[in-house]
Amino acid sequence: MSLPLNPDMARTFPPPVMEARRWLSEVQFTPDRPLINVSQAAPVDPPPLPLRQALAEAALNDPSVHLYGPVLGLPDLRAEVAQQWSAAYGGQIASEQVAITSGCNQAFVAVMATLARAGDEVILPTPWYFNHKMWLDMQGVSALPLPTGATLLPDPDQAAAMITPRTRAIVLVSPNNPGGVEYPASLLRAFFDLAQARGIALIVDETYRDFDSRSGAPHDLFADPDWAGTLVHLYSFSKAYRLTGHRVGAVVAAAAQLAEVEKFLDTVAICPNQLGQQGALWGMRNLGQWVAGERAEILDRRAAITEGFPRLDGWRLLGCGAYFAYVEHPFAESADALARRMVREAAVLMLPGTMFTPTGDAAGQRQLRVAFANIDRAGIAQLFDRLAALKG
Amino acid sequence: MSLPLNPDMARTFPPPVMEARRWLSEVQFTPDRPLINVSQAAPVDPPPLPLRQALAEAALNDPSVHLYGPVLGLPDLRAEVAQQWSAAYGGQIASEQVAITSGCNQAFVAVMATLARAGDEVILPTPWYFNHKMWLDMQGVSALPLPTGATLLPDPDQAAAMITPRTRAIVLVSPNNPGGVEYPASLLRAFFDLAQARGIALIVDETYRDFDSRSGAPHDLFADPDWAGTLVHLYSFSKAYRLTGHRVGAVVAAAAQLAEVEKFLDTVAICPNQLGQQGALWGMRNLGQWVAGERAEILDRRAAITEGFPRLDGWRLLGCGAYFAYVEHPFAESADALARRMVREAAVLMLPGTMFTPTGDAAGQRQLRVAFANIDRAGIAQLFDRLAALKG
Repeated sequence: MSLPLNPDMARTFPPPVMEARRWLSEVQFTPDRPLINVSQAAPVDPPPLPLRQALAEAALNDPSVHLYGPVLGLPDLRAEVAQQWSAAYGGQIASEQVAITSGCNQAFVAVMATLARAGDEVILPTPWYFNHKMWLDMQGVSALPLPTGATLLPDPDQAAAMITPRTRAIVLVSPNNPGGVEYPASLLRAFFDLAQARGIALIVDETYRDFDSRSGAPHDLFADPDWAGTLVHLYSFSKAYRLTGHRVGAVVAAAAQLAEVEKFLDTVAICPNQLGQQGALWGMRNLGQWVAGERAEILDRRAAITEGFPRLDGWRLLGCGAYFAYVEHPFAESADALARRMVREAAVLMLPGTMFTPTGDAAGQRQLRVAFANIDRAGIAQLFDRLAALKG
Repeated sequence: MSLPLNPDMARTFPPPVMEARRWLSEVQFTPDRPLINVSQAAPVDPPPLPLRQALAEAALNDPSVHLYGPVLGLPDLRAEVAQQWSAAYGGQIASEQVAITSGCNQAFVAVMATLARAGDEVILPTPWYFNHKMWLDMQGVSALPLPTGATLLPDPDQAAAMITPRTRAIVLVSPNNPGGVEYPASLLRAFFDLAQARGIALIVDETYRDFDSRSGAPHDLFADPDWAGTLVHLYSFSKAYRLTGHRVGAVVAAAAQLAEVEKFLDTVAICPNQLGQQGALWGMRNLGQWVAGERAEILDRRAAITEGFPRLDGWRLLGCGAYFAYVEHPFAESADALARRMVREAAVLMLPGTMFTPTGDAAGQRQLRVAFANIDRAGIAQLFDRLAALKG
């Protein structure tokens, strides 16, 4: 006997990263050719020692980190984000317009819960971030795919033509996961204008903003005095400060919308974990210089990809930035089959485009995501050698 | 301009604990009569020093606590729960039937997402735990209230008569929040048999199991070789080890159901925070004796309530156990108005029964929850003095 389960859950796919980890368990790697794992967008090193010391000190001596905190997060952290973001984006963001969440995935689902319910629609450019698609599936919300083509940049006019009375939001990720492209400020502005004109939300997930190659603000949307009527911004502290295991993210949105977010977060999390929030706050106050160094290193790795990629016969680099290169492979097989074969034949793990595109999508069959942030120039050269040696 | 928000969110109420905290901000308390806060079921002291030391040591020297972990939790922690629970309940629980979540609220919502979608029904005895009701509201699932009357114990026959083809689960909390009552093993068995016969889930939230006054297992449901076809058990590490700020809970359920839970948790949390999980594991392995002492103290406070309560004119103690006394007040006003007046006139904060019952419920208007775990015998005596002095 087993319980009848909600069919909306069966409609979505299992977690891609966990699925890919299972492929690894079927293969033995050797010391002379260890696995090159470019599957997950996550630091593999711990935070710098002073941040670890600050966490240890708080765990020992600050009783508050062990107790419940406010649902929408530590007031000091909300204020710090409001202040730093107002300066960085040249806009007006109040503490009451910032909420802290248990990671950026939770920021997305909490916001989406306040916007869309079963039967509604949300526009997602493809390739999309799979967890966004999974949440919409599980909630019975239709994800309308907006193909981005060879540039990986979505077209606002095409999006405009897709909007129906049931459409509640457009979701953009910039710098993009999985595509790696940095959306031009003018493109984000065009989407903002569209969303504002049609009375729907524009959600911009800026998880990778700290690794944007451009100087200055990536967009001017917060400078609009009416931004809160349209824009929802998402952020993650995981990448900049290597705090993935602590689960700390943020939402910037209208205070009235955060009152609804508060109901959701109270029910789903009660509060973000307190120690992780202290770590994020310590990082924001003390690690600006260190993050700049991390960014320089990531940009150097990105350069190594863009310089070296052309030597791979038949491969095509579609996008490269933040933690990601998004590439087209030259083989006849589907990206899914190729990704599994690469684990066996090349000791390389990357995620196939099929994980980022609708079922049956032809583009996704030819594409792969390379999360390169964890391999240095030598590792990237080795990756290219292994890809070059792959037989068709 | 503001965005149109999901009306399912507007249907539910704001977080009661946050709402009650707002009442406090309207009142000035004096040193000779400080606030007695019996509103929240949470330790106010940090974990014992050795556990804090273990957390600090891990933050400094164990890189893995800063990185993503498996979606369903640390394998060692899942195995520890499986082993200790199998022994405690006299049943067979495998590691694959245990998932770790970011707190017990998240355990509930993840399980409920796998069982019910908009239009479905779930039976909740009243007074209910408000976050259960909030999740169902937000998801468009109907919460069918099952009134428990003066005993605070739900009646299986009454529940049987409420089940329709849309009913997906019955949710029980034992020891009960807010009622404080410990459900007899025979009552839990009767509900299990009912749920099994009707092919629906029986969810038993045992957040307060470590403070049950009875010796031995509180029920024998895990001894049923088919438990996983019907039973879902929820647990929290927050209370036993004072880890509320770290957000660690657990689900015990069929492995096939946990595969669906994994999709939900990947999307909503990616993983439970790693350091908190290490803390919970350390606690399970090292703090058995310490928790026994905590339980003895809570049981002593409970005794202070049951002994002292009869001297309060017109008040009635309906249930008392775990962290809670659930009481009936003697005044003409509604519990909601009384709770606010008590903050002003008695410097006492407790939550009104209206927060645990359907809108307009007559019983809820007369009831209050006293979360007494944080006040010792002297504090309980003072609480009684202040209640006795309240004018009608």
